Amino acid sequence: MAEQKAPSGAPDRTLLGPGPSNVDPRVLDAISAPLLGHLDPAFLDLADETQDLLRQAFLTKNPVTFPVSGTGSAGMESCFVNLVEPGDSVLVCVNGVFGTRMADVAARCGARVTKVEAPWGRAMDPADVAAAAKKCAPKVVAVVHAETSTGALTPIAPIGSIAQACDALLLVDTVTSLGGLPVELDRWGADACYSGTQKCLSCPPGLAPVSFSPRAIEKVHARKTKVPSWYFDLTLLTRYWGKERVYHHTAPISMIYALNAALRLLLEEGLEKCWERHLLNHRALVAGLEAMDLALVVPEEERLPQLNAVAIPAGVDDQTVRGRLLEEFGIEIGAGLGVFQRKVWRVGLMGYSSARRNVMALLEALQIILPDAGHRLSPGAALRAAEEIYG
Amino acid sequence: MAEQKAPSGAPDRTLLGPGPSNVDPRVLDAISAPLLGHLDPAFLDLADETQDLLRQAFLTKNPVTFPVSGTGSAGMESCFVNLVEPGDSVLVCVNGVFGTRMADVAARCGARVTKVEAPWGRAMDPADVAAAAKKCAPKVVAVVHAETSTGALTPIAPIGSIAQACDALLLVDTVTSLGGLPVELDRWGADACYSGTQKCLSCPPGLAPVSFSPRAIEKVHARKTKVPSWYFDLTLLTRYWGKERVYHHTAPISMIYALNAALRLLLEEGLEKCWERHLLNHRALVAGLEAMDLALVVPEEERLPQLNAVAIPAGVDDQTVRGRLLEEFGIEIGAGLGVFQRKVWRVGLMGYSSARRNVMALLEALQIILPDAGHRLSPGAALRAAEEIYG
Repeated sequence: MAEQKAPSGAPDRTLLGPGPSNVDPRVLDAISAPLLGHLDPAFLDLADETQDLLRQAFLTKNPVTFPVSGTGSAGMESCFVNLVEPGDSVLVCVNGVFGTRMADVAARCGARVTKVEAPWGRAMDPADVAAAAKKCAPKVVAVVHAETSTGALTPIAPIGSIAQACDALLLVDTVTSLGGLPVELDRWGADACYSGTQKCLSCPPGLAPVSFSPRAIEKVHARKTKVPSWYFDLTLLTRYWGKERVYHHTAPISMIYALNAALRLLLEEGLEKCWERHLLNHRALVAGLEAMDLALVVPEEERLPQLNAVAIPAGVDDQTVRGRLLEEFGIEIGAGLGVFQRKVWRVGLMGYSSARRNVMALLEALQIILPDAGHRLSPGAALRAAEEIYG
Repeated sequence: MAEQKAPSGAPDRTLLGPGPSNVDPRVLDAISAPLLGHLDPAFLDLADETQDLLRQAFLTKNPVTFPVSGTGSAGMESCFVNLVEPGDSVLVCVNGVFGTRMADVAARCGARVTKVEAPWGRAMDPADVAAAAKKCAPKVVAVVHAETSTGALTPIAPIGSIAQACDALLLVDTVTSLGGLPVELDRWGADACYSGTQKCLSCPPGLAPVSFSPRAIEKVHARKTKVPSWYFDLTLLTRYWGKERVYHHTAPISMIYALNAALRLLLEEGLEKCWERHLLNHRALVAGLEAMDLALVVPEEERLPQLNAVAIPAGVDDQTVRGRLLEEFGIEIGAGLGVFQRKVWRVGLMGYSSARRNVMALLEALQIILPDAGHRLSPGAALRAAEEIYG
């Protein structure tokens, strides 16, 4: 046998990257409960309750709301494989990695994909989306609410109106937004939505909460072709995650325990309170970063509170700084992806990780590391600036 | 908030159904460790080690061996979507639910599917498979090693020879066999194989260990069409689960902690010792059941030790017996599926659940329940018969 490595004896990490975030200890307690069978009446009660808690978190009445047995990307795939048939026109909003991924997934379903783009680090412009929709007459309009690769927030309601005007289904990625800022499926008129557990829900990665409107479910049942994926086929999955509770695949029991506990904690804190907490810690972080002459990539009014894209100052080496943060301070922040590689740090303040102690710890660590890396700053100014926001 | 339900305050269950089985407490301990990021060097060490442990469990040298981020059925889908292109001839061995499911999944990939069948409760006959292969010239031959819906074991080596003779890839379902009886990928000449965590590995459901031969990987890279699934695309997944460690999707950290711990325990016990344990408890169970005049559905030489399909005696009501077992004794056994519905019970003795105390507890409970249900038996005979096996 090899020597025992992580998780026992693993280093303690403060997870301030793009996810996973730190998991609430009460969620880790729930995940380690002994197993029930996936058809046990006691487990089905828990499944029912989890679906109800998810509806509350998504602000929806959609009966078809449940966790897909995979990570956030499995949620994305489950939306597209069910709603798209070969030849369908699909309009995808692209302003980062996850919009790009949606276009790839839609194309693999045989869609005729039209991309409407915004620069990395910016929200989608509804006027561009409306113009593109006019041209391509889409059956589905897909958009990322919170683009984790850039930290940009796209308001969904205007995109919803555009989808409605051309009688298209609205498909929304809320992986990074759910729990961290208002996600309001029914108000938006969203027809399909997926999220992840490892961002603002303070739960380990492994499940993808999804929700489908009755109109979306009708569309799935009216398909001319079979859903290309058996694993994600809603016509089968809704027989387990509905009243019938017919076996499809073995539900990931322990992860559902964890999600159940995480949703209870979210709703105990209260959605509004949780959104406010994310905003406050974001404001303190930004004040501290600006006091260190670090700039955010996204314009103020388009910023996500839970994911902060920070421009790496000229002359500062990306890997040196992230490496020291991890090794000396146990703090993980994220690297830039795609065009942001080596140019941007991604600082997540999500769920349990969105806490004053973490903001202060990161600012303190940067105050020590950055001058060595060649970036000048006034000692103490960052901490004072953040403290002022906390008042 | 709704009142707190399971898992806290959930009933204690002895899981003797078709899976999930009971999870080793040391695995539940591992799953609740604080999270590392999915690109943290400490987590990547654990991922490397888990892949190495999986190779030992599968008895393979295949570099591409890793856990798919979904349940066993996601493992099935990941094998087919990568290895099958539209129009390919695929031969599927069908002797129960999971062979039937493979045929469905293959068809959704656009395969021309030929089914070769054996009766439910029987192993596949290699002569039938050879005859069918001759006719359809398959590119892939797919077979279930341990058919969980019936308890029948199909020896894989003869099917491997048939696949080799027609230059087809051999695709094997080892969901219920891995850890419970010899699974020998390299000796079989298997090109693709998937399993599950919730059967004989004593780990919660949620991951699908898979392994692909170098020949299978070559075939994936030589595809004329894109893999229809982004989530399961091996050309992308092997960049995370290989030397590059490039982000694809966020790995399900906590479940990988659990799988790592479960594999360590399996290899600490020793594969042979573990197979012997499964066999011994199976023999004791069968001796006890036969002493109660209960018959197994599968002929002796084709039986799985870890999944026992028991014919429900005439006049005995399926649900009454399973309901009393669960409510009065906390013991879960499985219902029959498909043609076995209401005719067969499925008694699993898998992984941590394969234990003398569980065999005796089930026999004792049946001794109490069955006479009430109208099935006559000699008091005490079943326990004595099982004890004789244990010696």
